Amino acid sequence: MPAIENLWAVIPAGGAGTRLWPLSRTSSPKFLHDLTGGGRSLLQDTVARMAPLVDDRFLVVTGAAHREAVMAQLDGLEPAAVLAEPSPRDSMAAIGLGAALLERRDPEAVMGSFAADHVVTDPDAFADAVRLAVEVARDDWLVTIGIEPTHASTAFGYMLTGEPLADHPGAHVVAAFVEKPAIDLADQYLASGSYRWNAGMFVVRPGVLLDLLARWHPEFAQRLRRIAADPSRLETLWPTLPQIALDHAVAEPASDAGRVAVVPAAIGWEDIGDFDSLSHLLESDPGHLTVLGEGGSVRGVDSSGLVVAGTDRVISVVGLDDIVVVDTPDALLVTSRNRAQDVKQVVKLLRQEGRSDLT
Amino acid sequence: MPAIENLWAVIPAGGAGTRLWPLSRTSSPKFLHDLTGGGRSLLQDTVARMAPLVDDRFLVVTGAAHREAVMAQLDGLEPAAVLAEPSPRDSMAAIGLGAALLERRDPEAVMGSFAADHVVTDPDAFADAVRLAVEVARDDWLVTIGIEPTHASTAFGYMLTGEPLADHPGAHVVAAFVEKPAIDLADQYLASGSYRWNAGMFVVRPGVLLDLLARWHPEFAQRLRRIAADPSRLETLWPTLPQIALDHAVAEPASDAGRVAVVPAAIGWEDIGDFDSLSHLLESDPGHLTVLGEGGSVRGVDSSGLVVAGTDRVISVVGLDDIVVVDTPDALLVTSRNRAQDVKQVVKLLRQEGRSDLT
Repeated sequence: MPAIENLWAVIPAGGAGTRLWPLSRTSSPKFLHDLTGGGRSLLQDTVARMAPLVDDRFLVVTGAAHREAVMAQLDGLEPAAVLAEPSPRDSMAAIGLGAALLERRDPEAVMGSFAADHVVTDPDAFADAVRLAVEVARDDWLVTIGIEPTHASTAFGYMLTGEPLADHPGAHVVAAFVEKPAIDLADQYLASGSYRWNAGMFVVRPGVLLDLLARWHPEFAQRLRRIAADPSRLETLWPTLPQIALDHAVAEPASDAGRVAVVPAAIGWEDIGDFDSLSHLLESDPGHLTVLGEGGSVRGVDSSGLVVAGTDRVISVVGLDDIVVVDTPDALLVTSRNRAQDVKQVVKLLRQEGRSDLT
Repeated sequence: MPAIENLWAVIPAGGAGTRLWPLSRTSSPKFLHDLTGGGRSLLQDTVARMAPLVDDRFLVVTGAAHREAVMAQLDGLEPAAVLAEPSPRDSMAAIGLGAALLERRDPEAVMGSFAADHVVTDPDAFADAVRLAVEVARDDWLVTIGIEPTHASTAFGYMLTGEPLADHPGAHVVAAFVEKPAIDLADQYLASGSYRWNAGMFVVRPGVLLDLLARWHPEFAQRLRRIAADPSRLETLWPTLPQIALDHAVAEPASDAGRVAVVPAAIGWEDIGDFDSLSHLLESDPGHLTVLGEGGSVRGVDSSGLVVAGTDRVISVVGLDDIVVVDTPDALLVTSRNRAQDVKQVVKLLRQEGRSDLT
C-alpha cells in the first residue's frame, strides 16, 4: 500500500513515566527505552509504524533536554522534523504547535497525532484505521481512533460511540468522552459494547483543529499561529500557553458540539503505564519469570513476574510470584506486580531528598 | 575476671555457607563477614569473645585458601596460631589436629572448640558456662555447652540432659544426643524442658578427646598424633583422615559410654544458617525493612524483611513483606524469608554451569 497523501505524523514525545522508575527517568523517559525487547525504543517503533503511512512527513515534539537523544535515535529524520519545546506545556500546546506549523506548510495536510510511548501489536489493523480516519478527517471532522477494550480498565478514559457516519462506513460520531471510571462503571462500559478506550490518537486537518481550539480558547490558537508565522517568538510565547490536555481543550467540547468522529479499532494497543502492564505485555510463559534485557544472567527458581536486567550482574529470584525486579547501574527496584503503581512513591521520596540525579 | 589457666580456644573456621549466597561464597565464607552490623566479622567476634578467657591461647583451623584472609582479620595473633588444613575433612579432623598439637605443647591444657561463625549475644553468660565447663573437663569429662532452646527448631541437633554431676553443681551427664527432629518431636523436646541444642561447643582435655577417639577410631587418633609429632607429615597424612563430624566420631559413642557432660546455658546463641535466621537476628523493628550494610541508600515503602546492601546503589523495595534482597557487585538475590533455605538451589545451578567465579 502506498503512503497516504498529505498525511503528517505528529509525535508528542514527552512524559517522565515515574511509575517505570528506575528504568524511566526525567533524564531518560520511557519513549527512549526498548520496553518490548525488540531491539528498538518505543519512539523508534512509533516512527517505524508510521513511516509506511507518511513517508518522511514527521514532526516529533519533545523537550529541549531530549532533542539530542531523539535525533540520535531517529537518524533518518531531518533535523527540522524534531521540534524542541522550551518547557513541558501538556499535549494541546505540543500538538497545537505541530498543527500551526503544518497549516502554513501544506494546505492539504491531514495530521495524525500518536504518542511516542504507546505499543501497537497489530500494525496492519492500525494502518487500516488510520486510512479510514484520514478520509473522515478530510471532511473536517476531528477524528479519534477508539480502541476496542480488552478488559474493564480503570486506567484509561473512554468514549461512547454514537450514530454511524453515513458517508464513512465504519466510523461513528462520538456521543461523549468520559473520564477514567471506577471498576463497577468500567465493567458496565465493557459489557455494553458501546465504549472505546481513548488512546489520545487524533487525526484532523491542522486548520480544523486550530479553529476548534479557537472556539473555546481563542488566545491559545492565536498564539500558536503567531509562533508558526514567526518561529523566533517561540521562546517568549511558549510560556504563556495554557498547560492543558488536548482532550479537555478541544476534544470534549467539540464532541458536545457534534464535531468529533471515531474509528473503532482493535489494534493491540498498550499504554505501558507501570511494570505490571509491562509484565502483561511481555509475558510469554505465565508462571515463569519474564526477562527484559540480558536474559542470560537471570536465574529463577519457582518464581514468576518480571526482571529488567540492566547490568551484567547475575540476578537470582527464588520462590516469589508476580515479583518485579529492575536492576540498573545506580538503582535497584524490587516490588510486586500488584504494587507497581506505588513505585511513584519512591520517586517522590527521592525528589524530596534532592536526589534528582536518580529520578 | 582473669583468664582461665591453660584454657586454649580451638576455632574451626570452615564451611561455605551456600544458603547465605551471594554474600557468603567458597572464596569468602560467612565467618569472614560482618553479619551483625557491629563492624566485626563473625570470626573477629568469636576471637573477641574468647580473648578474656584464654588470653592469646588460640588455635584457628581454617582452609589453606582462607589462611591469609583469617590472618589479616586477626592481626593480633601470631602466625603459628592459624593452622591451614590442606583440604576440608570435617570437624573431627580439624579439632582433632588442634587437640594433638596441644597435647604435646601443654600437659595441663584444656581446650574449648567454638565455631568461627556462631553468634553469642550474652557473652557474660557464655563466659560463666565456659568456666564451669573447664572445671568439669579437668575431671576428664568431654563437656559440651547445651543451649537452652528458645523455640522448637528443626534445624539443630539436641541432647537429652541426664543426672546432675555431684561434684559440679549446674552440670549434668548427657543421656543422649539426638538428630535434628521433625517439628512434632521438636515441640515435644521444647515442652519437656530436658533437651538442649547441640551447638558443637566442646570443652575437653586434648588427651581425653584423642583417647576417646582412639576407642572407636584408633587409626584416626594415631594419625593425628603422628602429625603433631612431625608436622612435616601433615600433607601426606591429612588426606587419609576420615571425613566425619566430631559429634558422630566421638561425642555420640562417648555419651553412650557415660563420658559426656553438659553445662546447660542460655547465652543468646544463634547459628546464622540462612537469610531468614539472619533477618530474625537483626530485626529491630518488625514490620519494617532491616538493613545490613549501607543503610542510607535503602528506601522501603510498606515493606518488611531484610536488605543486605553491599554496593553503593539505591535499593528501593515497595509493598513486599518478609522479602530478602542481597545486593553485591556481581550478583543479586531476591527471595523471601520463608524460601531462604532454597538459595542453595541457585548455588547448585551456578556450579553446574561452571560459574565457580560466583559461588
